[in-house]
Amino acid sequence: MSSTPQDTSLMANAIRALAMDAVQQANSGHPGAPMGMADIAVALWSRHLKHNPADPLWIDRDRFVLSNGHGSMLIYALLHLTGYELPMSELRQFRQLHSKTPGHPEVDVTPGVETTTGPLGQGITNAVGMALAEKLLAHEFNRPGHEVVDHHTYAFLGDGCLMEGISHEACALAGAWKLNKLIAIYDDNGISIDGQVAPWFIDDTPRRFQAYGWNVIDKVDGHDVAAVDAAIAKARQSTDKPTLIVAKTTIGKGSPNRAGTAKAHGEALGGEEIRLTRDALGWSHEPFVLPEAAYAAWDARVTGEAAQAAWNTRFAAYKTEFPELAAELARRMRGELPASFAQHAVDAMIAAHEKAETVASRKASQIALEAFTRVLPELLGGSADLTGSNLTNTSSTPALRFDKDGTPNGGRHINYGVREFGMAAIMNGVALHGGFIPYGGTFLTFSDYSRNAIRMAALMKRRVIHVFTHDSIGLGEDGPTHQSVEHAAALRLIPGLDVWRPADTAETVAAWTMALGNASRPSALLLSRQNLPYLPKAGLDEISKGAYVLAEPSEVGLKKKAQAVILATGSEVGLALHAQQQLAVQGIAVRVVSVPSTTVFDRQSVAYKSQVLPPKLPRIAVEAGVTDFWWKYGCAAVIGLDRYGESAPANVLFKEFGFTAENLAATVRKVLRG
Amino acid sequence: MSSTPQDTSLMANAIRALAMDAVQQANSGHPGAPMGMADIAVALWSRHLKHNPADPLWIDRDRFVLSNGHGSMLIYALLHLTGYELPMSELRQFRQLHSKTPGHPEVDVTPGVETTTGPLGQGITNAVGMALAEKLLAHEFNRPGHEVVDHHTYAFLGDGCLMEGISHEACALAGAWKLNKLIAIYDDNGISIDGQVAPWFIDDTPRRFQAYGWNVIDKVDGHDVAAVDAAIAKARQSTDKPTLIVAKTTIGKGSPNRAGTAKAHGEALGGEEIRLTRDALGWSHEPFVLPEAAYAAWDARVTGEAAQAAWNTRFAAYKTEFPELAAELARRMRGELPASFAQHAVDAMIAAHEKAETVASRKASQIALEAFTRVLPELLGGSADLTGSNLTNTSSTPALRFDKDGTPNGGRHINYGVREFGMAAIMNGVALHGGFIPYGGTFLTFSDYSRNAIRMAALMKRRVIHVFTHDSIGLGEDGPTHQSVEHAAALRLIPGLDVWRPADTAETVAAWTMALGNASRPSALLLSRQNLPYLPKAGLDEISKGAYVLAEPSEVGLKKKAQAVILATGSEVGLALHAQQQLAVQGIAVRVVSVPSTTVFDRQSVAYKSQVLPPKLPRIAVEAGVTDFWWKYGCAAVIGLDRYGESAPANVLFKEFGFTAENLAATVRKVLRG
Repeated sequence: MSSTPQDTSLMANAIRALAMDAVQQANSGHPGAPMGMADIAVALWSRHLKHNPADPLWIDRDRFVLSNGHGSMLIYALLHLTGYELPMSELRQFRQLHSKTPGHPEVDVTPGVETTTGPLGQGITNAVGMALAEKLLAHEFNRPGHEVVDHHTYAFLGDGCLMEGISHEACALAGAWKLNKLIAIYDDNGISIDGQVAPWFIDDTPRRFQAYGWNVIDKVDGHDVAAVDAAIAKARQSTDKPTLIVAKTTIGKGSPNRAGTAKAHGEALGGEEIRLTRDALGWSHEPFVLPEAAYAAWDARVTGEAAQAAWNTRFAAYKTEFPELAAELARRMRGELPASFAQHAVDAMIAAHEKAETVASRKASQIALEAFTRVLPELLGGSADLTGSNLTNTSSTPALRFDKDGTPNGGRHINYGVREFGMAAIMNGVALHGGFIPYGGTFLTFSDYSRNAIRMAALMKRRVIHVFTHDSIGLGEDGPTHQSVEHAAALRLIPGLDVWRPADTAETVAAWTMALGNASRPSALLLSRQNLPYLPKAGLDEISKGAYVLAEPSEVGLKKKAQAVILATGSEVGLALHAQQQLAVQGIAVRVVSVPSTTVFDRQSVAYKSQVLPPKLPRIAVEAGVTDFWWKYGCAAVIGLDRYGESAPANVLFKEFGFTAENLAATVRKVLRG
Repeated sequence: MSSTPQDTSLMANAIRALAMDAVQQANSGHPGAPMGMADIAVALWSRHLKHNPADPLWIDRDRFVLSNGHGSMLIYALLHLTGYELPMSELRQFRQLHSKTPGHPEVDVTPGVETTTGPLGQGITNAVGMALAEKLLAHEFNRPGHEVVDHHTYAFLGDGCLMEGISHEACALAGAWKLNKLIAIYDDNGISIDGQVAPWFIDDTPRRFQAYGWNVIDKVDGHDVAAVDAAIAKARQSTDKPTLIVAKTTIGKGSPNRAGTAKAHGEALGGEEIRLTRDALGWSHEPFVLPEAAYAAWDARVTGEAAQAAWNTRFAAYKTEFPELAAELARRMRGELPASFAQHAVDAMIAAHEKAETVASRKASQIALEAFTRVLPELLGGSADLTGSNLTNTSSTPALRFDKDGTPNGGRHINYGVREFGMAAIMNGVALHGGFIPYGGTFLTFSDYSRNAIRMAALMKRRVIHVFTHDSIGLGEDGPTHQSVEHAAALRLIPGLDVWRPADTAETVAAWTMALGNASRPSALLLSRQNLPYLPKAGLDEISKGAYVLAEPSEVGLKKKAQAVILATGSEVGLALHAQQQLAVQGIAVRVVSVPSTTVFDRQSVAYKSQVLPPKLPRIAVEAGVTDFWWKYGCAAVIGLDRYGESAPANVLFKEFGFTAENLAATVRKVLRG
C-alpha cells in the first residue's frame, strides 16, 4: 500500500477535480472541504483504512465518519475511486433526485457511507458510539488468539463540529471511556461560513482535548501525506486514549483565488475559477474523466478482498473453537433478536397481568427491562445522570466501567452524565455499528436537548430506544421547567419515530416488545413518574395496534351501545375509566379507547381504525399535554393543557388543570348535548 | 460589609437550615447544593454582590444566576435573608401551588430571581448573554466620568452545567468576547445524581476553560469564606477575561451522614438526619425560625439602598450632562419601542407594497430588518455561522468585534459561530438583562438544537426573535438532514411562542412588526430560501390577525360565493392562488386564506375566526410540512409531507411531493365531490 510522491498528488487531485466538477455541475454544494482534505484522505484511505469495497457491510471493517458532512463529495470521490458500487454516472448526478450522491452523505443510500451526517457535531458523536460498540464487542467476543473484532473508527471533522456543544459531550465521554481506537482528524482550516473564525472561535483545541483525556497530535501539515500518515500510525499505537490529529489545511486547496476563503466553503467555484484550478493543479482531464493511473493508485479492491479473506480465515478458526460465540456474534451483528424473544415477550405480558401491579410506568418499564435484559445481551442501557429516576438499570445490567488500561468491565448500563444530546447521538452510533440495541433515559422535557439526534435515528431508520420518564405535570414539584406539555405531541410529529405512552404494566411490556422488535425504527417511551393503576384487559395483540377498545359500556353495567368514545393515553387512561363509570351511573354509555401509540395506530387498516373509532360516535380525547395534536382524530372536545405547568404536588396539579373524572364526564355530557 | 468568622458560620448555617427544612417540609427538592454552596454564597452575597432588595429591577444591579437551579432553596434563602419581598411564609410554601418559591427559580415569580433555571447549562449561558449586554450597553452609554452601566454578572454552576454541551458553546463565546465582568463559581463537589462523577466526568475543567481564554482560579476551598472572597476580589480585577472560580465543596455540607453523597443531591434528609445535622451545626432553632443575629448579619437593605442612592446621584449627573442618552438608556431598559415605531412599521409596509418584489422571504426579512435596524438601536442581531444565508445582517448592523483589551467596536451583528443552542440561550440572557432586543438566525431544521432555549424564552415571556430560514424542502439540494418537515408544526406547539411563516414581503414586514411589538413573547420567523411572489393585497391590519382572506372567488372573475376555503402558509400561498385560478376556470369558487401565524390567529375572536373560516365551508390546507397539525382547523383534506425530503433542486421536489396547483385543485374538487 505504498505510494510514490507523484501518486499521492495524482490521487489527491483526482478528489479535487471530482469535487469541484460535481459541485459545479449541480451548481450547489461544498467544494472547499473535499479539496482541503484531499491529502489527508490519501493518507487515511490508501494507507490505513481497513475496508473492502466489495463488501461494505463486512463486520470488522474500519468505520469512517465524515462528520463535516457538507463535504460529501470527498466521500463520494473516495468510494468511487477505491472501487465501491458508485459509478461515475452517480457522481454526475450529485445532489439530484434519487441519486446515490445526495447533498449530505446518507447511510443505506450510498454503499460505504456509515452514517448520515450534515447536522454538525453529530458525526463525531456517532463515531464515539461506534468506537464504544467496537470496544465492548471486542471485550465480549474476542478470545486469546482470536481477535475477531478489531477495527478502528476514523472521523473527519471541521471547525463547525468543534464549535457545537455536542462535541463537548461526546469527546468528554470518549476520553472517560478511553476509546483508543477512535481517531479523529480535525480539518483546521480556520474558515467557517461566516469567514475567518478567529473572532468567534478562539478555542485552544489541543488543550481542550487534553482536558478530556485525549491524545493530541498537533500541528500536522494536512497537505503533507507522509506527515498525516505518520500521525495516524502514531495514533493507532494509543492503548488507552482516543486521538485527535490537528491537521492544518487550506480550504479549497488548489483553487488560485478561492483557496483559504469562506467562498470556497459552500459555493461552486464557477467555470473560470475551475479552469484556473485545473491549470494550477496541472489537471488536464475533462470533468468526470479520470486517468487510469488515478484509478490504479486508488483501487482498494484487491487489498480489501485480501484483508477480508484473512479475517474470514480467522473467523473460521474462531467459529471452530467457539461455535456458539461465533453464531451469537453473527446474530448480534445482523440485528436479529433471539428466536426465543417472542416467548419472552409473552411471558413478560403474562407476568404483568398476573401481578396486576399499581406502579409508575417508569417502574413498569424497569420491570419489563428486567425480563428483556436478562435474555437480550445486546441491550446496552444508560441514562443521562438520572438512573434512579429513569429506572433504566436492571439486575443484569451492571454499570459499565473501564479499567485504568481502558478494559471494560462487562457492564451494560452507561452513566452518560448530564449529556442528553450526546447520549442520543452516541446511541445512534452504537446502533449504526451493530451488535447492540441501545436505550437511554432522561426526563421527557429534555428530549428537547436531544431532539435532532432522535430525528436522525428516524431518518436513518435505526433501532434506538429513548426512555423518557416524568412525562407530564404529573412529575409534580419540579415545576414547569421540568414538566412536559408539548413534548409528546412534538415527538409524534417526527416522521419514522414510534412514540409510546403506555398506561400500565401490560401496555409498557407491549411498548418495549414493539420497540425491540422493530429493527428499522427508533422508539420513544413516555413514562410517568407517578403510580398508575393496572388495567385489567389488554393483551399484546390489541396493544400492539397502537389503540384499542379498553372498556365498553357493558363493562360498567350498561346494556346500551356506546354514545361516545373517550380516547386517552398513559396516566389519563385511569381517569377515562373513572369518567366512564361516573357517566354510566347517569345512564350515559361511553367506550374507552386506550391509545398507547398514535404513530402505530395510524398505520393500521382503515377497517381497524373504524372499528375502534366508529365514524358516527363523537370523540373526546384526554391527555396531560397540548390539545392541538388530538384534533386529527376528529375529536369533538379535547381535555389537555395549552400552557405551562406549575410547581406543586401532582394530585394538586391534576385537579388545578381539570384532569379529573368529573371534568371529563362533564365534557362528555356537554358534547352529547351538542 | 465585613463579617467576623462567627458571623459567616451563622450566616451559612442559616441557609443550610432553611434549605433542609424547606425540602423536608415539601418532601421534595434538593438540599445538597444549597448546603454545599452556603459558604460561597456568604462570600459573594455579603461581600461583593451589588444589589438593593428594595428594588430588584435597579438597572445597574449585579446579575446573579443560579445555573444549578435545582438548588433553588439557596437563592430563596438568600433573598429572604437579605431583605427581598420574600417572607418566611413563602419559604414554608416551598414547591407548593402559586407560591413564590417554585421547585426551580422562576423569573417574574420571585423578586430577585433574574432568570428561570433548571434545564442544566442554560443558566450559565443566560449569564453570558447578560454579561454581553452589560458590556455593550456600557460601551454605548457610558461617558468619561460617567460609568452609569457598570455591574458584574455572577453565576453559580455545578458539574451538570459543565457536562452539558451548551456550556461549551457559551463559555467559548464568553472567552472570545472577553467578558471580564462575568464571574462563574463552580461548585466542584464531585457528585451528580448518579453518584461520584469520576467514571463519567474526567474533564480537567481548569484546563478546558483556559482553552477558552478564561482566567481560572483553581483549588479554592469552597467552605473558606475568606478564600472565596479573595478569589472573587481577584476575579473582579480581570480586565479582559471572564473568570472561573473552581471551589472545592462537599455536597450537603453539615449533614453527618449525607454530606458528600449523591443522596444529598435530590432528596429530603429526613427527620432523623435533620436532627443530627442540627446537632452537628450547633443549630438549635426550630424549622423556619432564624435568630435575629442571622438576619442582622445578612440584611442588605441599608447597604443596598446606599448603593442605589449613590448610583442615582451619578445617574442624575449623567442625565444633566447627557439628557438624551439618559432618556434613551431608560427607554431601552424599560423595553419600550421608540414612539416612532408604529410609523416606521407603516412605512416599511408601504415600501413593500410599492416595490412588490418577488424575493425569498429570508430576503424580505433582511429588507424589513434594514428598515427596523436603522431606527431601533436596541436590535442586536446575529447568526449561528449562516449570516449570508439567514440574511440577518443589515447596513446599520456591522459585525460585533472586540479589541485586544476587550472593548467592543459598536457592531450590532454577532457571529455566534456554529452554536445554535448557545445563541438561543445567550439571546435569552440578553433579553433578561434588558437594553436590547436580540434576534438570531439559523436554518429551521436546527431549531431542534436550540428548542429548549426557545421554550425557556416562552416560559419566561421574553422578547427574543428567531430567524429560521430554509424552512422546507424548498431549500433543495442540501437534502433531508437540512429540510424541515415537522419543525413548523412542532414550534407551534410550544406555549407562548408566536410562529410566523410569511408568504411575501408585506407579510414579512408584518411578522417583524408583530414580533418587535410584543414585549412579552418570543417569536420565530420561518422563512424561505427560494423566491416567493408578492401578494397584492395584505395590509398590516389583516396580517396581524394571523390569518385573513387573501383572495375571494370574485378576484379571479367568479361571481358566486366560495364553495371551499384553501388555507396556506408561506411558500405555499402562491400555490393556493394558482389553484384558485385553475378552479375558477372550471367554475369552482374557492376562497384563499393566508395563515402567516396560526398562534396569533388562534387568539382572535370567535367572530373573526368564523368570518375567515365560515363554519359550513370545507377547508383544505396546504403546507410543505407534516399534516397532523392542520386537522385542528377541521380540514377536509391536508396537502403536506409526512416523510423526510430528498436531495434535489427545489422545483423538482415540490413536484415530486405533490405541491403543485394541479394537485391542490384536484384535492379541492375531490373534497367538493364528497
